[in-house]
Amino acid sequence: MELLSTNVSFDGEHRRYRHTSATLECTMEFAVYLPPIAVGPDPQKVPALWWLSGLTCNDQNFMQKAGAQKKAAELGMAIICPDTSPRGVNLPGEDDSYDFGSGAGFYINATQQPWAPHYRMHDYVVKELSQLVESELALTGKRSISGHSMGGHGALICALRNPGRYVSVSAFAPIAHPTKCPWGEKAFKGYLGDNPAGWEEWDATLLIPEADERLPLLIDQGTADDFLESQLNPEALVEACVQHSHPINLRMRSGYDHSYFFIASFIDDHLNHHAAALGLS
Amino acid sequence: MELLSTNVSFDGEHRRYRHTSATLECTMEFAVYLPPIAVGPDPQKVPALWWLSGLTCNDQNFMQKAGAQKKAAELGMAIICPDTSPRGVNLPGEDDSYDFGSGAGFYINATQQPWAPHYRMHDYVVKELSQLVESELALTGKRSISGHSMGGHGALICALRNPGRYVSVSAFAPIAHPTKCPWGEKAFKGYLGDNPAGWEEWDATLLIPEADERLPLLIDQGTADDFLESQLNPEALVEACVQHSHPINLRMRSGYDHSYFFIASFIDDHLNHHAAALGLS
Repeated sequence: MELLSTNVSFDGEHRRYRHTSATLECTMEFAVYLPPIAVGPDPQKVPALWWLSGLTCNDQNFMQKAGAQKKAAELGMAIICPDTSPRGVNLPGEDDSYDFGSGAGFYINATQQPWAPHYRMHDYVVKELSQLVESELALTGKRSISGHSMGGHGALICALRNPGRYVSVSAFAPIAHPTKCPWGEKAFKGYLGDNPAGWEEWDATLLIPEADERLPLLIDQGTADDFLESQLNPEALVEACVQHSHPINLRMRSGYDHSYFFIASFIDDHLNHHAAALGLS
Repeated sequence: MELLSTNVSFDGEHRRYRHTSATLECTMEFAVYLPPIAVGPDPQKVPALWWLSGLTCNDQNFMQKAGAQKKAAELGMAIICPDTSPRGVNLPGEDDSYDFGSGAGFYINATQQPWAPHYRMHDYVVKELSQLVESELALTGKRSISGHSMGGHGALICALRNPGRYVSVSAFAPIAHPTKCPWGEKAFKGYLGDNPAGWEEWDATLLIPEADERLPLLIDQGTADDFLESQLNPEALVEACVQHSHPINLRMRSGYDHSYFFIASFIDDHLNHHAAALGLS
């Protein structure tokens, strides 16, 4: 992997890298925050929080806007931000809409042409990129995962589909039941085909009944989020959790919207939650 | 003034407004952060930190990237972010370069045509906008001022030229001696004319000998800042301060660059500095 840039941040380092992804068959960029103890001449290995961003984002939105580095530096936690889709693969229609194709990979593995060979963001995040950064950077290999909106749901399915791989999971305003909302229906139809039976393994709400591991779900959701009723549907996820005794903590945050101002307001709570699971506090 | 948007942030509010500026003869936008005690049905008046941004910025860069709202919410401090130049005045060449015209008002009052009637950012920030927001929002009228790069210098000259108007001043990587660097020479020649004698009243380093008020200058400067040697020249400001017994605290920050990752790392220190002067801590 090629180092593109480094910014010192709270005495740690924000770095951007480029690499060739075998899973996605394209060149990808990603960002890493390493806390002070994981940089310098004698770096110590640290656990990592994986952050999955939402529609239209790349690896930079969270690093620039969430204000997470101060707490991560204090805790001794790395943060890994992948991009949100393959890039530059030149598929027809790839850049035509904000909610499908570029910037909208949904952290699933596509089965339909022409998306199938490239749009495999689940395997990229869970397998290839973690293997790469854990071999190249000062990381222990202990992982938590979180994200926002499309990425909040991405965090939930990465955790639910891969028991034992993440020690904790949280989400901000996740698209909680994508097989039953316009964003999810459009994406799943495009990437997975017309038959909704093939969509179920990628829907967090539908994965709850079969979950092998009862990893508690920590979710923050703003009450003034413009997408709450039409797209996000946290009550469906809560209902599935209640029915199947899956621990969930859905915190409705009065007056907050879907923006990074909302994420920044509560990111420290999430970092503390993950730090406890990672053995950092 | 017209409210454009509101985002709840750390239980306070980030708001964007539009208004018609008489000073600049154009429509301007600006951003405000109001801490929790200054919003809601029974708002209390709070003091304000004015933040002046650097080249190419608008009112949003600081609000989205500096991570200042958490500390401001705790302290009970408002933050006001003006834009960095007049907008939409359609002067020839206005948008031709990143360091002159749009996004590059330098917080001075232009004397040269065609810039003179519009490019009067000093009077806009110091007089018109403060009068407007202090009459319309829950502000006490007690003010501090800070900024970055072009805006760091802007903060210094606003404080130095207007004794008694600000209770404290600080800067991140200011263009400390603009009459002697390429950015400053280009801007001052364009806005103020060919005669450097007319530039002196807008150069912080040259204002120190005549300063009526010994307001301490708090400055953070990264050692890995790409513009340090060519444009910023903090040592000239320090030399003037030492010669004229003007209190200055220049903190050279090892490894930090010119980005918002640098600003975010030390913004809480600056907010605490201003809070003490504003009577908040």
